[in-house]
Amino acid sequence: MSLYSGLKNLLIGRSLPTSAHAEERLSRAAGLAVLSSDALSSVAYATEEILLVLVMAGSGALSLSQPIAIAIIALLAIVILSYRQTIKAYPQGGGSYIVARENLGLVPGLVAGASLMIDYILTVTVSISAGTAALTSAVPALQPYTVELCLLFIFLVMLANLRGLRESGNLFMLPTYTFVVSVFILIGLGFLKQATGYVAPDYPQAPVTESLGLFFVLKAFSAGCTALTGVEAISDGVMAFKPPEWKNARSTLLAMGAILGTMFLGITYLAHSYHIMPEEGQTVVSQLGRQILGDSNPAYYFIQIATLLILLLAANTSFADFPRLCYFIARDGFLPRQLSLLGDRLVYSNGIILLSLCAGFLIIVFQGQTNAVIPLYAVGVFTSFTLSQAGMVRHWLNERTAGWRSSAIINGLGAVVTTVVLITIVLTKFLLGAWMVVIAIPLVVYLFLSIRRHYRYVARRLSIEGLPPRSYIPRPKVEVVTHPAVVLVGQLHQGTIEALDYARLIADEIVAVHVDTGSTDHASLQQRWQQLESDIPLVILDSPYRSLAEPLLKFIQDYEAEHPGIFSTIIIPGFVTRNWWEGFLHNQTSIFLRLGLRSKRSRVVTTVRYYL
Amino acid sequence: MSLYSGLKNLLIGRSLPTSAHAEERLSRAAGLAVLSSDALSSVAYATEEILLVLVMAGSGALSLSQPIAIAIIALLAIVILSYRQTIKAYPQGGGSYIVARENLGLVPGLVAGASLMIDYILTVTVSISAGTAALTSAVPALQPYTVELCLLFIFLVMLANLRGLRESGNLFMLPTYTFVVSVFILIGLGFLKQATGYVAPDYPQAPVTESLGLFFVLKAFSAGCTALTGVEAISDGVMAFKPPEWKNARSTLLAMGAILGTMFLGITYLAHSYHIMPEEGQTVVSQLGRQILGDSNPAYYFIQIATLLILLLAANTSFADFPRLCYFIARDGFLPRQLSLLGDRLVYSNGIILLSLCAGFLIIVFQGQTNAVIPLYAVGVFTSFTLSQAGMVRHWLNERTAGWRSSAIINGLGAVVTTVVLITIVLTKFLLGAWMVVIAIPLVVYLFLSIRRHYRYVARRLSIEGLPPRSYIPRPKVEVVTHPAVVLVGQLHQGTIEALDYARLIADEIVAVHVDTGSTDHASLQQRWQQLESDIPLVILDSPYRSLAEPLLKFIQDYEAEHPGIFSTIIIPGFVTRNWWEGFLHNQTSIFLRLGLRSKRSRVVTTVRYYL
Repeated sequence: MSLYSGLKNLLIGRSLPTSAHAEERLSRAAGLAVLSSDALSSVAYATEEILLVLVMAGSGALSLSQPIAIAIIALLAIVILSYRQTIKAYPQGGGSYIVARENLGLVPGLVAGASLMIDYILTVTVSISAGTAALTSAVPALQPYTVELCLLFIFLVMLANLRGLRESGNLFMLPTYTFVVSVFILIGLGFLKQATGYVAPDYPQAPVTESLGLFFVLKAFSAGCTALTGVEAISDGVMAFKPPEWKNARSTLLAMGAILGTMFLGITYLAHSYHIMPEEGQTVVSQLGRQILGDSNPAYYFIQIATLLILLLAANTSFADFPRLCYFIARDGFLPRQLSLLGDRLVYSNGIILLSLCAGFLIIVFQGQTNAVIPLYAVGVFTSFTLSQAGMVRHWLNERTAGWRSSAIINGLGAVVTTVVLITIVLTKFLLGAWMVVIAIPLVVYLFLSIRRHYRYVARRLSIEGLPPRSYIPRPKVEVVTHPAVVLVGQLHQGTIEALDYARLIADEIVAVHVDTGSTDHASLQQRWQQLESDIPLVILDSPYRSLAEPLLKFIQDYEAEHPGIFSTIIIPGFVTRNWWEGFLHNQTSIFLRLGLRSKRSRVVTTVRYYL
Repeated sequence: MSLYSGLKNLLIGRSLPTSAHAEERLSRAAGLAVLSSDALSSVAYATEEILLVLVMAGSGALSLSQPIAIAIIALLAIVILSYRQTIKAYPQGGGSYIVARENLGLVPGLVAGASLMIDYILTVTVSISAGTAALTSAVPALQPYTVELCLLFIFLVMLANLRGLRESGNLFMLPTYTFVVSVFILIGLGFLKQATGYVAPDYPQAPVTESLGLFFVLKAFSAGCTALTGVEAISDGVMAFKPPEWKNARSTLLAMGAILGTMFLGITYLAHSYHIMPEEGQTVVSQLGRQILGDSNPAYYFIQIATLLILLLAANTSFADFPRLCYFIARDGFLPRQLSLLGDRLVYSNGIILLSLCAGFLIIVFQGQTNAVIPLYAVGVFTSFTLSQAGMVRHWLNERTAGWRSSAIINGLGAVVTTVVLITIVLTKFLLGAWMVVIAIPLVVYLFLSIRRHYRYVARRLSIEGLPPRSYIPRPKVEVVTHPAVVLVGQLHQGTIEALDYARLIADEIVAVHVDTGSTDHASLQQRWQQLESDIPLVILDSPYRSLAEPLLKFIQDYEAEHPGIFSTIIIPGFVTRNWWEGFLHNQTSIFLRLGLRSKRSRVVTTVRYYL
């Protein structure tokens, strides 16, 4: 244990007390940096994804990237207008999960939740892969280590988040604005170089494997829709802005849309006029940089590093959003409760680790290749767009506040357009990988529902509601205590009652202990206790660091020291689920407690089990 | 648990009762097959190892293989004469560990034990790699899967041994004699083909990277000494022969030496006269086969398969010898006790699994390349040869039975010669890998000694010798039992005493249970019990299948059924070692017991811990 905690302190840092929880409010400029890195960074790969499809019809087809980019920017405008309505209606933050659950009902809400979870995992996978590609484009010698680099970056971002990296405006502004400014300069220099007579070398010969047609163009369009990923972040985080929150959020969203659209259009235009063809081992932006700036220009390397950094930042936003989403869903009983617990450093550590494992798994499966993951990416994003906009339409129809009509029309347009795009994406990308997401979303929803069913079953079985008044023989106060017992009490349920009954049977002095990790109402617990178990004193321990084991172990150690030379029985109540895998849905605290008691040299530890 | 036991039954088979233990006695022909596969199979790689060294001085140096082979055969003769003396002196089987411990003392014995353990692990690694090479030489398409094939073969041999593959004479004779006969036929045909005027193609050009010299020749000689690996097996297994055991063993050893020498010389001679040069991806024997028999002759494939089979058999002998050696060393307290327990199928399962893991690890590290492991191989073999022969010299000097002088001289010669060879091997192969074994042997010996120190410390701390007569308040017989307890008793030590005291404190009816897995003296245990704990009845359960948990769980289930509706406390005594890693030296039965009690729905399980 000591090796483990030493390593943990080194990597993650010491535990923080619950009271250290605080939030920083962001200015518009800082909010843009913190909440838009995901959206803005997608210009690093979106153009390339379009070109990768088009090149299959030969280099002549590459000019189609222009109209496609314009269509995507029109789509972006619609989505942003749509989300401006959401911000107004949900100033406390309206993620798709909440908007869809509130307005469309349980299952659509869960579908939105599942899509978002998948979306966040894929954001990490895509951003890390694309960031690594920016790096290996600049330093081709690193190419063989793509997967290792990706995993290293995930690990570092995970560590930073487990330590409790705050979404600090000042820290995030530097890479975001560096990226934006350098892309703008690159685009400007690109136009200048062209205006001063530079003629790009001809396209290399490309083999033609597909013929031009509607389906083909839609496929390229679908690929480019990845430019839109992340635009919902600002509407989720309205409360992070300085007051007036919703107004600041709306204008930031607009600014972000303008910046994103300009960069995307600029890069797509220049990629065409500089005759850039996607190639293995070098990104389109990197090729553009090399042509405009020259191969060994330090500015080129600067842009690649800026791209890597903003993509790491984009991955980082998922590390803030995914655990928060898991917290909401777990709080509603659809995910294991462990995902709703604050870790040592006041972050949802379990969610952070889960996200890292999932993203790491995908990196390994797809070998860190951005364009292998892209077909999966947009499905989740557009599913949650669609459900969110549809939910908003319902919202306006129900609320009918001032101006509801125009808002409903805007959101309605958004819902229809994103639905059409979603169908397009699923159809054109189905065989390339979208099928995985189409299968995964209902599976995850089924898992959500099964988890809630299990929790409800356990709650029903353990419930002590309607328990007849407890009849026990009054316990005489003994002169000399010879075999005392400590009963650990989590919640008041059937299992606890059994453990207390057992303690009455074997011990001549009993004390019950409960640890408050932050959510216990002391007075009401003591009151219920007096109704049920008035013959046994209940001690409630405070745990400022949210650890269950530490205050308990300290209490037990003191208790045993007060009763030297005799056996003190430590009684741990527990319930046993019907199947072993259901155990994962419950905190396995007793394992850690038993290990802790062992290292504290407790002599007698008793488990009283209640079988469901 | 049920999935686990289902899978286990399928792969390993059902448990066997201890009474099913039996031994088959072998005829000389069968004994040769069972005990010599390791030695005989070494002709599959020994010649190649010599050539691999010589070729570095150019193809002209390859003719040196002749005198080197003759020197090795002289060495073989000395070693075999030497072991004939051992067989006479140790008719119950005289492995190096036993001979060295008895005659040279503790540390030399442990050095021999460590060398043998390493030797057995390397035998598996080398035999499996060489067998796989025989296969991939015939079917080059399998070459990329070398490591996977090696691991598969290890897994299969492990499974067969976990099932309790008996060293069945009939089963083993087929592959061994098939191999011997086919190698003899190959050699015969080789001479015939040459006699009828066949002229081998010239040697291909070989780059010269080393110059001829004494060190170089000794290096080639050391490489060829791998031909001697496994010759000690017959002297270890004397008792496996039909009576008169030692006479049969001696003549079998002689026969084996003659066969091995002839095959080795024949192959080395033909490899020279057929101008065979070692090459990547094809063994020397395979090249010889292709030249003599023709590329697509079924007889060629037949020889390769026979080679693979005898090499699997050679690996298999280590699977019988290694766990037996571990049993001896563990019984003496130098290895974890778990290695001395018979598994479900009456084999030392833990030793078998340990061997498989070690060999598998080496396969992965050395990528299944036979000649990468060879430099490590001979060090352990010759260390144990030397210690064994030296021990025999000491034996004769002590015993002075009839003819001791000549025996001592023969063993003395053997000891001197093997010492010289050992030094030669270490010097010439040091940088190629022998250093690993030179480091490993003392480390393993240190581990042996540390383990015994720990066991002695624990025994001293837990000892109840000199415990004053127990004074406890006589327990009144209660009318109605309300809180009974079952105390599980392994051995009678301080921890047990504590658990019983605790039970007296909390329960109104107590029963103690002990499981006899085959080694308990019922009467003497009951007698000691009566002296110590006469107020508590002790039940001794028989366990014909050597399982601790099963009879206990059944007893507890019956006990709880006899006391319906009340809490029965199951008390498990345990002691806690000072460091967590010391826990591996003790059976972690309590973990399995707790899991079992959980699946049997026991309600109250108490651990009473004694801290060392």
